[in-house]
Parts: sequence; C-alpha cells; structure tokens
Amino acid sequence: MKVLVTGGAGFLGQRLIRALREHGTLRDAQRAPQPIRQIVALDAADATDTGDDARVRRLRGDLADPATIAAAFEGGIDSVFHLAAVVSGAAEADFDLGMRVNLDGTRALLDACRRCAAPPRFVFASSVAVFGGALPDVVTDATTPAPQTSYGVQKLTGELLIGDCSRRGYVDGRALRLPTIVVRPGKPNAAASSFASGIIREPLAGVDAICPVADDAALWLMSPATVIRNLLHAHEIPADAWGTSRALNLPGLTATVRDMVTALRAVGGAAAADRVRFQRDERIAHIVSGWPARFDAARALQLGFTRDADITAIVRDYARQHAPQAQTGGNA
Amino acid sequence: MKVLVTGGAGFLGQRLIRALREHGTLRDAQRAPQPIRQIVALDAADATDTGDDARVRRLRGDLADPATIAAAFEGGIDSVFHLAAVVSGAAEADFDLGMRVNLDGTRALLDACRRCAAPPRFVFASSVAVFGGALPDVVTDATTPAPQTSYGVQKLTGELLIGDCSRRGYVDGRALRLPTIVVRPGKPNAAASSFASGIIREPLAGVDAICPVADDAALWLMSPATVIRNLLHAHEIPADAWGTSRALNLPGLTATVRDMVTALRAVGGAAAADRVRFQRDERIAHIVSGWPARFDAARALQLGFTRDADITAIVRDYARQHAPQAQTGGNA
Repeated sequence: MKVLVTGGAGFLGQRLIRALREHGTLRDAQRAPQPIRQIVALDAADATDTGDDARVRRLRGDLADPATIAAAFEGGIDSVFHLAAVVSGAAEADFDLGMRVNLDGTRALLDACRRCAAPPRFVFASSVAVFGGALPDVVTDATTPAPQTSYGVQKLTGELLIGDCSRRGYVDGRALRLPTIVVRPGKPNAAASSFASGIIREPLAGVDAICPVADDAALWLMSPATVIRNLLHAHEIPADAWGTSRALNLPGLTATVRDMVTALRAVGGAAAADRVRFQRDERIAHIVSGWPARFDAARALQLGFTRDADITAIVRDYARQHAPQAQTGGNA
Repeated sequence: MKVLVTGGAGFLGQRLIRALREHGTLRDAQRAPQPIRQIVALDAADATDTGDDARVRRLRGDLADPATIAAAFEGGIDSVFHLAAVVSGAAEADFDLGMRVNLDGTRALLDACRRCAAPPRFVFASSVAVFGGALPDVVTDATTPAPQTSYGVQKLTGELLIGDCSRRGYVDGRALRLPTIVVRPGKPNAAASSFASGIIREPLAGVDAICPVADDAALWLMSPATVIRNLLHAHEIPADAWGTSRALNLPGLTATVRDMVTALRAVGGAAAADRVRFQRDERIAHIVSGWPARFDAARALQLGFTRDADITAIVRDYARQHAPQAQTGGNA
C-alpha cells in the first residue's frame, strides 16, 4: 500500500502517520490487510517528523499546484487521508486562500485519484462547521448542512465532490465531520476553535489563557487519539457499508466551557483553572455560536466509530502526555 | 440596470429576455424599479433572438473562459440571471464538461460579480436534481439535498457558493430549484427529463414519441411561463426576505406520465395520445427515478412564488401557442 497524507506535517497528520507506521497495514478493496510500503507526507510546511522511518517520504508543496500533485501521485497511490485545510478563521479572513486550498486542492486530489490504476480509498477530514443557520437542539444524521462560514461551505463542497467521485468510481471516499479536537498541543492557530485547546493547554503549562466565548458556550469535542482511531476506522470499513452517503457525523461529546474548566480544575487544580480569563471576541463568539454542540450520531456508532468517555478523561490524557508536572493527582 | 443572462440563447434564456424587454424595469437594492438599459445575452451558441431591440447585446462564449467573462462584465453588471448549464444527461456522460461549465462557470461569474462596484443580484437556476438517495414521500424545505448525479452535485455546489458569496456581500444571490419544465418547444436535448416535453410536443405535431420510463413515473413540473414569472419574482424579493438560506424549492405540480398522457388526450385527442410509445431506457429511468416528484413548497408559496393550475392547463397553453391545429376543442 502507498498512502498519501495531506497536511502530513500538521497536528493530526503527524499523529496519523505515527499510527500508520505502528499499525503497519491497511485493508485493500478486498478487505485483506496489506503492508504499508510508503507514506507520502504532503504539507505546505516541511516539518513532518518521519521518525527515521524509510517508509515516510516528505513532500513539501501546495495542493493546488499541479507539480506537487504529480509528485505526490508518482507511481500511484492506494489510499489518501486528506487532512490539509485552511482552517475556519483563516478561510473566513481570506476567501481566495480558502477556495484555493479547501476547494481547488480537494478537487486536484480527486482528479489525480481518477487517473490512478484503481480508485484509491479517500478519507476526508470534513467538519461539523458544515452545519449552521437555524439548527435543531440535537443534530441528527438527517439534519441539513447549511454552513454559514466559507470554511463550512468549502468542506461541504468537498464532501459533495467526494460523494460524486465515489458514485462514479473515481475514488472510494469517506468524509468524516470532525468535532472540535481537544487538546491540541503546541501553539494556537487561526481556527476559530483554537481557544478550546488553549484554555486547557496554557493553564496546564502555567500560562494564562483567554477564552473568547462565554462559559455556557457548548462544543462538540473529540480527543486527538479518538479522531486518529476513527480516521483509520473510516478507511477500513467496506465501501458497501456507506450506502448513498459518503459523509458522516463523528460521535463526539458535548461539553460547555464551564465543563472544560471544571475538568481542568480536577486535573490541574484551582491554580490552573484560575488562569482562564474570559474576554469576549465577537468575531470568534459569532462563528462558534453557529456550530452545533449536540448530536445524535447514530449512524457513526452503528458503523463502529468511537467516542471519548468524558471531558475529564480527555484533559487527564493530555496532561499525562504533555504536562505531567501539572497534574494534581486527578481525583476528579 | 444592466442585466446579464447566461444561457441567453437557450429555451428559458430567450423567454426570460423577452419578458425583461416587455417588463422594462427591475428593482434595485432599494426596491425602486429601474429601467433596463442593457441585456447581455451570453451563450455558447449564437442564436439569441434580440427582437431587434437595441438593449439586447449578444455575446457568444464559454463561461469558463476569462475573456468571455471580462466582455460580459465590461462596464459593470447590476443583475445576473444564471441559466447556462450542461444538462443532467450530458453532465453525467461527460464529468469534465459538467464540472467546467456548471461549477467553474458559476464560480467565474461570482468572481466577476465580486469585482463589481456594488454586489449584483444573482438569480441562479438550480434544480430539484439536488435531491436524491433515500427521500421522504413528500420533500419539504427541511429535506437534505443528497444528489446522486453529477449535475445535481454541481447545481448544489453552485447554491452553496452563491450562499457564501451572498453572506460575504459579493452578490445578492437567489437560487431556485427548478422543477422539470414542460412543455419545451423545439428539439429533444440531452437532459434526462427531455422525454417529459417530447411525449406532449411530438404527438401534438403528429409525430410518434418514445417514453423511456413507466407510465406511473411521477414528475415535479412547471410550465415555461410560470418559471419565467418565478425567476423575475426571485429577483424582485428583498434580500432580507431570504434569511440564512438563499436556495428554494419552487412550487411545481406533481404529475405521472399517465396524467400527462391523459392531458394530451384531452387536448389533442386519442390520435395524439396513441403516439406515445413506451420503450424503457434503463439509464434515463434510473436517473429520473431518483428525482423527487412530491414537494411541500411552503417557503416558496409564502415568498409569493406561483405554481401552475394543472397539467391539462399546461398542455393546453402549449398547444395554443405551438400546435393550434392539434387541438380537439379542449373539453378535458
């Protein structure tokens, strides 16, 4: 198997590549596990940690650049994990950039897949940002996506093109609508949801964090470990399990900012929790308020996708790996 | 007002241009009627009937060609009626052609609008082909579009981009999901729905017609006169009436092929009705069976869009205009 990971130097991309290396195999169209012989880690940045693994090939370039796509697909590709994206805040601030990467980039990948000898599996990181406007209290598999951000529109357009290309046999696509992923290590990014990791990560590192939304703001969350497991699971499910829709709401968990601060207090103590400062940012608050926070993800659970136990477990796992000194003992 | 009509040489485009000429005005953003000074009739074909009206400027070219777009927008545009499309059957047969015209062409128009001094009104002819897959018996305004054809995907993508560009203030968009339009005069085209006009038009002209679907196949229909009235109405509704969704199911009427043949018999007599021959075409039947035929178009009716009285009235109107010799007297 030759696997392409776009956004391969990103937070999820690097974790996914590590998981692929450890796992060692992926199922082919006949459901037989096949050894992974090469992982092409494509990214606009050149920071992929290959882990000194000869199977990992770093490739730097722009998704919308035909030469980059040609280099990525040289010798064919069996599976694509398409994680690269201009994130929500950035796509809102720069319409052309978002369209070029999120729409044209996805289309360029699909076009390249179509020219492969056999249709590659194509796992796409979509987003709950496809939902917006007037929403029911609980979003179900039947709720119509009506995105109210450019990012959401571009992700939904990607889902539609992947669906059509799957129907036509150009790819075997699977689009997962990712919840907000917490806790991301490292630095804040331009995603409107960046604060959701920041209000856990920064306090556990002894740094103050600004929360730009009210404490009753609710989010639909998933941990990095769970989303990686679900991305791999999406690849392994047979094509006929998807029916006429190749897009899926992943099973996250609902937590308010208050729940998150409570979990932070349980794991990192009062000193950590007190480092969260509330300072409203209307632009962020407006974007986030449009995202649904409660789902009935029945179809995903039926297809074997998994969810995190609770927000405290997510915070504790993060602290264990990234901020062991910050843990108070963890009697939540 | 300077108005651009894409597909201006097409069946609906020519009728719309005639209606614009007769109407003489369109409302501006302040709801004030303004005289139409120029109508740019853009089409890949060069067949627009200008009616010797100096206001109509014919422009031949490809929507995805930047030079064509530049010529169309020279001196600015106040309103766009975007009717041009590669139709369903052709977009299914030639994926690249459909993507180029239906997706890239729409995007090129939106980009050009964005560069206008003020955001143009943008009325888009979408289609009920955005619906597909498992559908309820009656499609409502809340039903999720899940297109199962490339044409449907491309139309839905157009709706999404128009919605986003409206939200961003690049255009003031309105996307109407058109029912199947009957009766089209002239020749069959590559649309999967072409037969729906053919089984009325051909028999009234004394010619046999092949019906490629069963007589219990149901369609969601609208007459040419009604759709033109609704396209103009869509332009005239104020922006704030649309809420967060710029797309709308138009109020058609439901008729089975049997209903259509009954109407044909009422208008053109038994000789006409007997000219319809049933000869199943699996490809057409499959596409058409995926289209919904029953809608609750509450939102459209509330916004003042109109529907036809019944299928017999549609057939009689067509016969009156295009086949007066074929009418038997019309006591249905």
